[in-house]
Amino acid sequence: MNTNSLKPKASAESQIDMTELILPNDANVLGNVLGGRVMHWIDLAAATAAHKHCGSVCVTAAVERLSFLNPIRVGQLAHLKGRVVYTGNTSLIAKVEVKGEDMDTGDIKLTSEAYLTFVRLGADGKPRKVPPLLIQTDDEKAECEKAKAIRNKSLEIKGK
Amino acid sequence: MNTNSLKPKASAESQIDMTELILPNDANVLGNVLGGRVMHWIDLAAATAAHKHCGSVCVTAAVERLSFLNPIRVGQLAHLKGRVVYTGNTSLIAKVEVKGEDMDTGDIKLTSEAYLTFVRLGADGKPRKVPPLLIQTDDEKAECEKAKAIRNKSLEIKGK
Amino acid sequence: MNTNSLKPKASAESQIDMTELILPNDANVLGNVLGGRVMHWIDLAAATAAHKHCGSVCVTAAVERLSFLNPIRVGQLAHLKGRVVYTGNTSLIAKVEVKGEDMDTGDIKLTSEAYLTFVRLGADGKPRKVPPLLIQTDDEKAECEKAKAIRNKSLEIKGK
Amino acid sequence: MNTNSLKPKASAESQIDMTELILPNDANVLGNVLGGRVMHWIDLAAATAAHKHCGSVCVTAAVERLSFLNPIRVGQLAHLKGRVVYTGNTSLIAKVEVKGEDMDTGDIKLTSEAYLTFVRLGADGKPRKVPPLLIQTDDEKAECEKAKAIRNKSLEIKGK
Amino acid sequence: MNTNSLKPKASAESQIDMTELILPNDANVLGNVLGGRVMHWIDLAAATAAHKHCGSVCVTAAVERLSFLNPIRVGQLAHLKGRVVYTGNTSLIAKVEVKGEDMDTGDIKLTSEAYLTFVRLGADGKPRKVPPLLIQTDDEKAECEKAKAIRNKSLEIKGK
Amino acid sequence: MNTNSLKPKASAESQIDMTELILPNDANVLGNVLGGRVMHWIDLAAATAAHKHCGSVCVTAAVERLSFLNPIRVGQLAHLKGRVVYTGNTSLIAKVEVKGEDMDTGDIKLTSEAYLTFVRLGADGKPRKVPPLLIQTDDEKAECEKAKAIRNKSLEIKGK
Repeated sequence: MNTNSLKPKASAESQIDMTELILPNDANVLGNVLGGRVMHWIDLAAATAAHKHCGSVCVTAAVERLSFLNPIRVGQLAHLKGRVVYTGNTSLIAKVEVKGEDMDTGDIKLTSEAYLTFVRLGADGKPRKVPPLLIQTDDEKAECEKAKAIRNKSLEIKGK
Repeated sequence: MNTNSLKPKASAESQIDMTELILPNDANVLGNVLGGRVMHWIDLAAATAAHKHCGSVCVTAAVERLSFLNPIRVGQLAHLKGRVVYTGNTSLIAKVEVKGEDMDTGDIKLTSEAYLTFVRLGADGKPRKVPPLLIQTDDEKAECEKAKAIRNKSLEIKGK
Repeated sequence: MNTNSLKPKASAESQIDMTELILPNDANVLGNVLGGRVMHWIDLAAATAAHKHCGSVCVTAAVERLSFLNPIRVGQLAHLKGRVVYTGNTSLIAKVEVKGEDMDTGDIKLTSEAYLTFVRLGADGKPRKVPPLLIQTDDEKAECEKAKAIRNKSLEIKGK
Repeated sequence: MNTNSLKPKASAESQIDMTELILPNDANVLGNVLGGRVMHWIDLAAATAAHKHCGSVCVTAAVERLSFLNPIRVGQLAHLKGRVVYTGNTSLIAKVEVKGEDMDTGDIKLTSEAYLTFVRLGADGKPRKVPPLLIQTDDEKAECEKAKAIRNKSLEIKGK
Repeated sequence: MNTNSLKPKASAESQIDMTELILPNDANVLGNVLGGRVMHWIDLAAATAAHKHCGSVCVTAAVERLSFLNPIRVGQLAHLKGRVVYTGNTSLIAKVEVKGEDMDTGDIKLTSEAYLTFVRLGADGKPRKVPPLLIQTDDEKAECEKAKAIRNKSLEIKGK
Repeated sequence: MNTNSLKPKASAESQIDMTELILPNDANVLGNVLGGRVMHWIDLAAATAAHKHCGSVCVTAAVERLSFLNPIRVGQLAHLKGRVVYTGNTSLIAKVEVKGEDMDTGDIKLTSEAYLTFVRLGADGKPRKVPPLLIQTDDEKAECEKAKAIRNKSLEIKGK
């Protein structure tokens, strides 16, 4: 375990880039990637960013609403970029952007923007403190505010 | 294509029961199922309920907030129950409940409750009308209202 | 381990429902599901029913003759229903029914009916007593007799 | 399509050797290979032998009783040897032997002996004549008789 | 197909970043990633870079010698960076660097450096001209020279 | 662990035969098997031959240049034959031949010939002595010389 695990860390330190080629088994009969396959990759990218930020394993606690804006087809690429954008006490929020790329034309389109909440767990399975997020730019500050607002709003819905 | 494809259908007609055994590759290093694997199964159950309701393929448009309340471990079962609970013009909402079962003790715990929006697509890739949902009981009516409310609330958040 | 593990149990307590969507990698070049893929799911459904009945892991000892009556195609569903129908001393028989569903038309056809024998194993890898089956209806009694007869007949064949 | 597709062929011409390494996802919680995974490989070996014999695709019609005599563990090998041993009009029987190998000690043990019936299909999905089996040795004759006897006996059981 | 497909392209335009989490099925019994799994990802990264450079599919013609310098363990990450570094008439060379990351400590180690030759294919399966590589820096020039030298040397070996 | 693990062994004792059916997910959009999938199988065949020769696990240290001479298509077979052809002190070279078979016509074509270097590891993760190779025929001697020459030549290239 990293002895500096509670030292503040910048968002850039947890950033992760994944690329997936859409294979036949990833798609429905129309040849479009299955939403569930993309969700699986989103969770993997977010969990990896959370693990990198904390230096130990984190588990998915919640996924905020996510939309699928553009389809990605068999033979095209899904690019995922994940990073931690907000930290609480024992939990954090990771944001993942998904883009589809048509390698024949070079066209790139936004598919999804997702916010996932993770809890850091110790070897005993109990929540542990997460290192604070080092916020250095106005963009990072805006990202953090947005993530917090989305989470609070959706907690309200569930409270109903 | 079903010629009666716009005849109203009850929620029970689209119901789908899935059971998955958690294998080593489905889990993190602590032996708990990966959130993304569960999301993948949730989408599959919901897409199947949507397809059964419409008699043709539907694509995932959005996933409302979903929480993971209890972990499921390697060697345990994930039970998923999906069904259509709300229909609009060319879209519908499917609800999926996920429960974990420990086969050694028989204990069953709720893991997640998810709401997913689907759009019905024709062979031309364009949205098509979905058959209306036949609502017959008070429970079904309450489910439908709840699904609609969650969706509207979360659209508000995104509108910000 | 369940302390009541030898209390008699009804067939309904071990029942398991699985649904699988046929993906391209599950099929031959004609687009029909591979027999081996279906056998794999049959074994999983039967092993799960056996595990639920005993409250501990069981291993496949034998598969009685199974036929494939109707093909299932890519994009269609395979529904599997498994349950324990006979118990011996340290072994039991699970029955699995497989049906194919065409989600476009709603047509459902029987694909296979399978009988599998399992042995319950302890942590030491040795056979353990299985809880007796609680037979409550005439149908359950008939199922039990049929399973026993099929097994005895096929043991005769092998004895030759 | 092979123009000589009805020329008699020897069993050796359809023989197929497969080796599979048992990975964690192939095994139960005790570390023994799942029966269903072995059945999947058995079907693949038999279907391949049938395809090689006929020069076109064949589909699994039935699997005769198969037993699992010895377990195979994670990290060990499963060796499968398949070949056509009997031919009818539009169907044939392939036999598959499965052996487990412990690479640390070199020990090899018989796991299963399976008989599977296949039907040859044309591009129209209709059964087609299969090339006759060329029987050249006493062993081949005995194999053929045994396969036919097992099949007839098990058809009797089903007929009850 | 991209009408500008023969316009010179910089190496940066074909760059691809992949990240893979090592799962139990990717590893040997010691918990180290299998060499073959890494080779599979290397080929995927290189083929993707080649496809992006050409705007159409390319097939692997050869892999130059590749070494595995440091192991990557279950639960760690494999990072792959691929890009086109040399172009011929109808073929090109893509270079892939693989690094392993321990997310608990943040340690990153070089695992492999690979050079793969691809041929661009048209819809007719025949080789097609590839867009020339735009070399802009001394580093890019050195990379290109190195790739060409390695390929020529290894062709010599095969010539023996 | 085999107590005779340093007794000389013939090449035939480590020979391994694998057959793989090319499924849709193994292929690119043209229907040809992905180079990376073949590399994965080559490594598996070679690692298995190495493990059989040594009676304990070996890890891939390097893959010499390998070419893909002929494509293999979806629905066809890849046959792999692996065996140890050279031994050093704690390392060895395994050779793998890959052939593609069209089951409709019976045509078989050479796809690749690969040489891979492995290191034998003990339970402590340190290199261990490998049993010497028993060379009995002129062909085996020539194979051994060729393997050694290819390896030395390619080490030269890397030295540059």
